[in-house]
Amino acid sequence: MELKDYLKQEGFIVKCQYGISLMNAKLQMINAELSMRKGRNVIHSYSSRIKSYDSLAAKLKRKGGKENVIEMEEYINDVVGVRAVCTYTDDLYQIAEMLCAQRDLRLLKKKDYIKNPKKSGYRSFHLIFQVPVTFQEEVQWIKIEVQLRTGAMDYWAELDYQLQYKKENREAKNIGKELKEYANAIEQIDSKVLELRKRIEAI
Amino acid sequence: MELKDYLKQEGFIVKCQYGISLMNAKLQMINAELSMRKGRNVIHSYSSRIKSYDSLAAKLKRKGGKENVIEMEEYINDVVGVRAVCTYTDDLYQIAEMLCAQRDLRLLKKKDYIKNPKKSGYRSFHLIFQVPVTFQEEVQWIKIEVQLRTGAMDYWAELDYQLQYKKENREAKNIGKELKEYANAIEQIDSKVLELRKRIEAI
Amino acid sequence: MELKDYLKQEGFIVKCQYGISLMNAKLQMINAELSMRKGRNVIHSYSSRIKSYDSLAAKLKRKGGKENVIEMEEYINDVVGVRAVCTYTDDLYQIAEMLCAQRDLRLLKKKDYIKNPKKSGYRSFHLIFQVPVTFQEEVQWIKIEVQLRTGAMDYWAELDYQLQYKKENREAKNIGKELKEYANAIEQIDSKVLELRKRIEAI
Amino acid sequence: MELKDYLKQEGFIVKCQYGISLMNAKLQMINAELSMRKGRNVIHSYSSRIKSYDSLAAKLKRKGGKENVIEMEEYINDVVGVRAVCTYTDDLYQIAEMLCAQRDLRLLKKKDYIKNPKKSGYRSFHLIFQVPVTFQEEVQWIKIEVQLRTGAMDYWAELDYQLQYKKENREAKNIGKELKEYANAIEQIDSKVLELRKRIEAI
Repeated sequence: MELKDYLKQEGFIVKCQYGISLMNAKLQMINAELSMRKGRNVIHSYSSRIKSYDSLAAKLKRKGGKENVIEMEEYINDVVGVRAVCTYTDDLYQIAEMLCAQRDLRLLKKKDYIKNPKKSGYRSFHLIFQVPVTFQEEVQWIKIEVQLRTGAMDYWAELDYQLQYKKENREAKNIGKELKEYANAIEQIDSKVLELRKRIEAI
Repeated sequence: MELKDYLKQEGFIVKCQYGISLMNAKLQMINAELSMRKGRNVIHSYSSRIKSYDSLAAKLKRKGGKENVIEMEEYINDVVGVRAVCTYTDDLYQIAEMLCAQRDLRLLKKKDYIKNPKKSGYRSFHLIFQVPVTFQEEVQWIKIEVQLRTGAMDYWAELDYQLQYKKENREAKNIGKELKEYANAIEQIDSKVLELRKRIEAI
Repeated sequence: MELKDYLKQEGFIVKCQYGISLMNAKLQMINAELSMRKGRNVIHSYSSRIKSYDSLAAKLKRKGGKENVIEMEEYINDVVGVRAVCTYTDDLYQIAEMLCAQRDLRLLKKKDYIKNPKKSGYRSFHLIFQVPVTFQEEVQWIKIEVQLRTGAMDYWAELDYQLQYKKENREAKNIGKELKEYANAIEQIDSKVLELRKRIEAI
Repeated sequence: MELKDYLKQEGFIVKCQYGISLMNAKLQMINAELSMRKGRNVIHSYSSRIKSYDSLAAKLKRKGGKENVIEMEEYINDVVGVRAVCTYTDDLYQIAEMLCAQRDLRLLKKKDYIKNPKKSGYRSFHLIFQVPVTFQEEVQWIKIEVQLRTGAMDYWAELDYQLQYKKENREAKNIGKELKEYANAIEQIDSKVLELRKRIEAI
């Protein structure tokens, strides 16, 4: 089956939606547990998406894969994506740890783009899990990418995303450079905010 | 800890909520899969609740249990309850089967009060599952009762529920009798509706 | 603009969605007020939809209208539809009354297909309202049909709906007749259920 | 009636919830309209709350009012609060304008704490509206405060909020001063982010 048609199939969408619901339920439980312990809300906002055909095709091309279902399943980890934005980086690492402790998830990969930002300046914590879905009488494992970020990183990433399709342009290259320098300012905000919160808590 | 206080604890509520989310995600996936196959919506409405202290205390008393957490966990299967109402009984049995096929659920009990109604006339299909919750670094299994009903059974049950606290009264006893006879009329509706649907599909 | 394209326009969808949200907020408030007074939940389930192009085109054809935006706005009252299903007919009439008392809604039409069922046997209470939407700096009034039904009427309507596209067939005609007779059985259920509830309340 | 009891009354809560639903429906419509025009999501997250008794009592005390329902309705504008967080300040002002154009809302007050931050450094755009609620057969106007902020302002405000109950402490005063200086850094982020977005759009 053509990739384009596969993505429109209801069966495919149903499985992805289930994966998203399961992951959101886990994130909400973790948020509730941590918020209870810490006396403040820990996850600030949630979002999720199934990657569009256009993005998938472009990513497959970039990675040198062929445009079909098998190569998609092999090469693309973020067909299903769930994102949680929090206020503080220490909370973020705790959420990551608690997700990894979930027995019914298989962790495939962990990438700490906070400690090691991408060349572009991109920062976030990525976890790739497999979750079991019982569908049409058999257990299938589907991949989900969980992105954990602070609000400041989320800001930055939004600008970077808008720049993405214009990269060939010279002015875009200039903005890209500035954006990269700007990533450092973003990092300092996160540190400063965390420091102030800790001092407030210590009073 | 007193039962009353235990039920108000945020940790308890968080785990129950997670169980409800997980079960709802499964029911929604099953609904999507079946609806896709059959070309019509299969589950008509969803609801869920955590049993109140008053109901729990009354049920424990009825069962001869003591009012504490241990006896609640042993004797009460519907502390957490999820209900799905569907239109047709054949769909209902298929949903039950697909729930039982979910690998990450442990089936504890199955009670077919449709084939074998309670003495009162009550009809529904009950499944008691245990679901795994990773909470505070350990896996705990919590019990959830899933009730599957047709809309007609749901009607009947609502009237029965309203009668419940008035059972000592003589008029209540009369109504109870009528309600029981009425359960048969309800059953005939379900059969008739199912028969008509099958004939329509066969055209 | 072609009707088909008009219906896909985001502006059109945005206004319809707003109308649905507003009407749902009103129904939920009315449900909360009545449930508070009566000590039981009054609206059992909510649903809503924007009519599809196929249904609209077919309905316009049936009504002898041309397939364009102007005739759609003139002839079709249920482009946007909201449905509330309740358990008891007396509650249903009270909901209708409270909706009509909402100052910011304009009532265009009221059709009591419960007292005067359609020839097919169809029963429901229909209200056509206009709701004001401030969109692109001007106030526009969009039409919304609110359908109020009991669960039993909802059952019946679902079967009727499945039969709808098969009406030419002879067996379909037979089923149609039976379905119509069956509408009376449905009516008796609603009466009986209401009578029992009143007697229970009177204890 | 005591203020504490009034706030627990279901009738009070029902009206507040309706106000929140109405305002959220408006914000979502505005977001949809703007996002459609601009090709990017404009409102990033929504939240809402009914003020707790403790906060209300404390605020009434600060304002020199008595703790009763009449003085609450007179002096307190944010008993019901709705917040929308956006990424860019220019979007934020456009949302404010579009809210003010809604015919069925009465604007009571507008406070631009972005152009004129509070002494503490607090920045946000506040709008106080009255919305009509048809409840128990009469139209009542309830007050709702809408807060519009960027994510950066939201960050800052969260820290400020955590500091709030500790203000007497000397270390708290130091942190307060730093937080105020920090508000300027926050402002610069918002300007920089806006500038970069405009340059990206201009490519």
